[in-house]
Amino acid sequence: MASSSTLTSKSFLGSSRIDTASLSSDHLRKLSISSVQISFRSRLPKKLQINAAGSTFGNNFRVTTFGESHGGGVGCIIDGCPPRIPLSESDMQFDLDRRRPGQSRITTPRKETDTCKISSGVSEGQTTGTPIHVFVPNTDQRGFDYNEMSVAYRPSHADATYDMKYGVRSVQGGGRSSARETIGRVAAGAVAKKILKLYAGTEVLAYVSQVHKVVLPEGVVDHDSLSLDQIESNIVRCPDPEYAEKMIAAIDAVRVKGDSVGGVVTCIVRNAPRGLGSPVFDKLEAELAKAAMSLPATKGFEFGSGFAGTFLKSEQEQIDLVEYREEYQMVNYKLENSFQANIYNRKEATYSNSR
Amino acid sequence: MASSSTLTSKSFLGSSRIDTASLSSDHLRKLSISSVQISFRSRLPKKLQINAAGSTFGNNFRVTTFGESHGGGVGCIIDGCPPRIPLSESDMQFDLDRRRPGQSRITTPRKETDTCKISSGVSEGQTTGTPIHVFVPNTDQRGFDYNEMSVAYRPSHADATYDMKYGVRSVQGGGRSSARETIGRVAAGAVAKKILKLYAGTEVLAYVSQVHKVVLPEGVVDHDSLSLDQIESNIVRCPDPEYAEKMIAAIDAVRVKGDSVGGVVTCIVRNAPRGLGSPVFDKLEAELAKAAMSLPATKGFEFGSGFAGTFLKSEQEQIDLVEYREEYQMVNYKLENSFQANIYNRKEATYSNSR
Amino acid sequence: MASSSTLTSKSFLGSSRIDTASLSSDHLRKLSISSVQISFRSRLPKKLQINAAGSTFGNNFRVTTFGESHGGGVGCIIDGCPPRIPLSESDMQFDLDRRRPGQSRITTPRKETDTCKISSGVSEGQTTGTPIHVFVPNTDQRGFDYNEMSVAYRPSHADATYDMKYGVRSVQGGGRSSARETIGRVAAGAVAKKILKLYAGTEVLAYVSQVHKVVLPEGVVDHDSLSLDQIESNIVRCPDPEYAEKMIAAIDAVRVKGDSVGGVVTCIVRNAPRGLGSPVFDKLEAELAKAAMSLPATKGFEFGSGFAGTFLKSEQEQIDLVEYREEYQMVNYKLENSFQANIYNRKEATYSNSR
Amino acid sequence: MASSSTLTSKSFLGSSRIDTASLSSDHLRKLSISSVQISFRSRLPKKLQINAAGSTFGNNFRVTTFGESHGGGVGCIIDGCPPRIPLSESDMQFDLDRRRPGQSRITTPRKETDTCKISSGVSEGQTTGTPIHVFVPNTDQRGFDYNEMSVAYRPSHADATYDMKYGVRSVQGGGRSSARETIGRVAAGAVAKKILKLYAGTEVLAYVSQVHKVVLPEGVVDHDSLSLDQIESNIVRCPDPEYAEKMIAAIDAVRVKGDSVGGVVTCIVRNAPRGLGSPVFDKLEAELAKAAMSLPATKGFEFGSGFAGTFLKSEQEQIDLVEYREEYQMVNYKLENSFQANIYNRKEATYSNSR
Repeated sequence: MASSSTLTSKSFLGSSRIDTASLSSDHLRKLSISSVQISFRSRLPKKLQINAAGSTFGNNFRVTTFGESHGGGVGCIIDGCPPRIPLSESDMQFDLDRRRPGQSRITTPRKETDTCKISSGVSEGQTTGTPIHVFVPNTDQRGFDYNEMSVAYRPSHADATYDMKYGVRSVQGGGRSSARETIGRVAAGAVAKKILKLYAGTEVLAYVSQVHKVVLPEGVVDHDSLSLDQIESNIVRCPDPEYAEKMIAAIDAVRVKGDSVGGVVTCIVRNAPRGLGSPVFDKLEAELAKAAMSLPATKGFEFGSGFAGTFLKSEQEQIDLVEYREEYQMVNYKLENSFQANIYNRKEATYSNSR
Repeated sequence: MASSSTLTSKSFLGSSRIDTASLSSDHLRKLSISSVQISFRSRLPKKLQINAAGSTFGNNFRVTTFGESHGGGVGCIIDGCPPRIPLSESDMQFDLDRRRPGQSRITTPRKETDTCKISSGVSEGQTTGTPIHVFVPNTDQRGFDYNEMSVAYRPSHADATYDMKYGVRSVQGGGRSSARETIGRVAAGAVAKKILKLYAGTEVLAYVSQVHKVVLPEGVVDHDSLSLDQIESNIVRCPDPEYAEKMIAAIDAVRVKGDSVGGVVTCIVRNAPRGLGSPVFDKLEAELAKAAMSLPATKGFEFGSGFAGTFLKSEQEQIDLVEYREEYQMVNYKLENSFQANIYNRKEATYSNSR
Repeated sequence: MASSSTLTSKSFLGSSRIDTASLSSDHLRKLSISSVQISFRSRLPKKLQINAAGSTFGNNFRVTTFGESHGGGVGCIIDGCPPRIPLSESDMQFDLDRRRPGQSRITTPRKETDTCKISSGVSEGQTTGTPIHVFVPNTDQRGFDYNEMSVAYRPSHADATYDMKYGVRSVQGGGRSSARETIGRVAAGAVAKKILKLYAGTEVLAYVSQVHKVVLPEGVVDHDSLSLDQIESNIVRCPDPEYAEKMIAAIDAVRVKGDSVGGVVTCIVRNAPRGLGSPVFDKLEAELAKAAMSLPATKGFEFGSGFAGTFLKSEQEQIDLVEYREEYQMVNYKLENSFQANIYNRKEATYSNSR
Repeated sequence: MASSSTLTSKSFLGSSRIDTASLSSDHLRKLSISSVQISFRSRLPKKLQINAAGSTFGNNFRVTTFGESHGGGVGCIIDGCPPRIPLSESDMQFDLDRRRPGQSRITTPRKETDTCKISSGVSEGQTTGTPIHVFVPNTDQRGFDYNEMSVAYRPSHADATYDMKYGVRSVQGGGRSSARETIGRVAAGAVAKKILKLYAGTEVLAYVSQVHKVVLPEGVVDHDSLSLDQIESNIVRCPDPEYAEKMIAAIDAVRVKGDSVGGVVTCIVRNAPRGLGSPVFDKLEAELAKAAMSLPATKGFEFGSGFAGTFLKSEQEQIDLVEYREEYQMVNYKLENSFQANIYNRKEATYSNSR
């Protein structure tokens, strides 16, 4: 019976001879019987997996990340960065410090210095057009925290899936599915932001717009004047002081019980270059959605009017759009240049001490 | 001044010669004048574009679509399909018929037969492992409907962006940004569903769960027993008859005024193979998000508990998860195999007669 | 026993547990026995195959071909073509006619009109920046020619490999490994040549420089003045009339015996844009080598000084290079713009009537 | 003058703003002046470049290299390696030591220890299926050797092209075009060889078959019994002692004059898995050709019968092939499993002291 599951699995990779066998009536019958009898189902699909490489993102500006919460360190290679961009480790360090856990009482207490080192692609303070290699050593491995993991799969974590797929328990800190993997992304993002700023005056800002049931109302934040300083003015990174207080209280309320809550991050882009993305599969919103949904624990993504737009009628939208038509040059430009992408994280590392 | 910017801009592939040509005399003069006066901004950003190819999706099962609402036809090449899968045009035609506009009063009235033809990759009723070429001729081009488009950009359509990016007005029916492009995807999806069904017993079903303000409450549809017949039992494709009526009424209400509304599609997968996707960038949810968000007019995507999950506390989730831990094999299986992906379309072609 | 082969196969895709099993002594013994008995060994490696998609080439100008010698037709999708390039079917037809077999007595007699049709991506005589779809119907399928193939694998053809890999006998004309697949490449190449000509004045010319033992001596063809007319002046496409005669005679000599011979094609590029290709893996010479070596029956590729360069000493080269250094701007430019790529085809379809 | 190159270089992403900035006043004046004065032509084509990322190779087993001869170090990320492969730094070190210059009098004297460090993807002596990060620090940067390079482009090196394409002089040791970049490839190759050996018993061996005019005759090396020990038995790595002596003498003859010579490397694969590669563009020989031709200074590649095959007639081949047909299983197997790939390096680092 096990062998039958074996059969179907392999065939995905193309052996037809075996397919024929598995399609024969007799065989099929056995298959349906077995699935009734035993936990066959949980083993069968295993064979369909293809262990392709998935650590690279992008074509012209291409990032490949490496590293896990255990091991020597994490980081990335940034390939395709234009030459002659002024760049130093401090450019990355600023954002790495913002990412780093343990900055306040409301985040996970794991302590790391997360100090990055560039070892190629930059010469005399400028990029050379060759791959930029960034390395951040792991300093706080805390193996002891994860003892229980050797026994049970942690709920809502990738442990079980990794074990099934790779036959490996990544017991130490979540392995590759740890939020620590995002260090490479943050370093690369810092470079991307620099290039965009330099070439098109583009600004990318993100802030917390919801924590558990505390929802920042639309319009409270002025997207035209929003500054990084406003966002950084409190530990929850909500630019409105009043709502920031409420959010911190909401986290504290669950924190003392050892619990955690989710939230929503809103990202705005000012002066986005027009025409980014390639129709049809590589549209800007599609690429952004992929990037955002590949972050650990992210469960939703919306763009522009988002899900709320369902409650509008096209007529209402058209009223707005007539205006756009009238002064197309400016308004459409603005439209394209200030899209809003909401990324929802079910359990953001930053709002939890249970992680 | 303008001329220098012009130079860089056109250089897409970079040419100096063409540049030189276009720099000549008359042209340049007009350019510099206009750029001084106004529309400078609308032309300048053009230079940021990189016209990369974006019509291909996937690695091992790779789909490349072609075609627009005008021209000879639309379709796709499916590369990497395993050999010896029974396949015929009727497999695709079934889903193409479901996609086709003009099926009922609540959809856009454009009439096409959308008859597909396979011209390679299938021999004697079976796939051969070579690229499958699918072609659907355009029969109803209705150029006359689009006369006004030659003048003004249509609101909420890609006209303006295409013009800016490509310097081409795709006046006839939206060109590549038309929902007609999805014909190639539907054909490829029909093949993918067949493979998944054959190899892993996987079932993929999608239904309408919201139309404007009519929201199907959670729990009304039983995802374990849901069938395609239930979904197809009414013109709005909501498996619950009562809510289907409400949805149709909501569409009719705006339809008579020449208006349209948005909605939400819920997709479930039963017996999904475990371990699909590659960490970290090519996770299953990331790939699904990209695919969904690349559909015309799609503005949001959620997976699993989605945005609603923000209102839960980790504690509540853990209660459920203790149970998962106890009988991992089955429950986790079920978790993985019945994810729910909500795809939100701001203006779904199917619910509008204005398109 | 079958199950053991089954086991190893799966493991490539990542299940290691099973590997361990299959490597155990007992298991291995069975394996070697079987391989003695029924050439089992030749089947075992079969499981390592991964049927990835391989019909797409290029990133910014991306070509996906489809079709085989049997079936409805062949062709390609060209994605990423810049907009506003003047283009019509006749541009492609010129090169398709040059590719077409049956043009003279020295080629394979298969008769097809090879008439191409563009059905997307071109509007009013200009490219629109969207995917260009090219279709060439099959008209002469000559199934009867291939009767014997149903029995035996043809020597030096891909039949055996395809059968092993896909479990499919592509009996009709070589299937996907037929030189007929190159129709899509020729159509795309015609577009690429147009773009290069337009943007950078680039000219690409190729001619036959060897047929069997008739080798065109270096220097006979002047690469600065070589024209397409000279190449097209005889049926063997060697620009030197005297050597062309010798080559034709060499082919005739084997042709009458039903035999065939190989040859060498030399390709030159004038005014090649400088700086094409991306270090390190996607260098120009690497991409060209891949493209050339993916043609059916191609067995060698050289670039620049090629294999002959081994007989030089660096000292000799340096003498030349001192000159380059002196007038760098011009000479280096010329160097880069007139590389020579020799592509060797073991059994070029054009020189054989046995195919 | 320098500023003009700067301007154009930046336009990579194409920015309008920067353009605008750089278009201002003073700068622009310089531009038009300088462009009038000198070799404008040599700068113009600069705009043709597309700085795509090119440091990644492969899909399922994907290698991304980084690093140059200057800077902190070199190395690679190996993504897609199957889990549970026994692996340690010593596996890589063996081949890195073979690659290392300065091993004997006939190679370039640059001294590095080239000690590699794995910092992710391996846990407790086994691969985990996650990206393997390999780092080799640069220890001997020898900046002083390259003083003259600040002045003149080195003949036959990539200096001039890099300067034109990136606007950056990689003065220190050739930068990314240095043979030092291949360290990442060698490390990845060591892993690939381990996997192939483990899964299919595949053996990959390469030896020197030609140095300048010393050509190892066909048949001298028995490809069935050839061992790594035989290859490693002398400093030129030719398995035949007699010819090895001749080759060493040939190198010594030029070495004393400060000159260098080229050569040919022959690579054989025993027990190659059948069916590797994907038709049509990603055929095995096409992928190998690309990989080989992307090595610095490589000018030619042949596969199987290679260029020599042109001198055969199809008739002669058919005689052999009849035999193949008779005992297909074995002979065809052997054919596929012992292909011969000749890679020609014009100036192999190993045979020169001038580098």
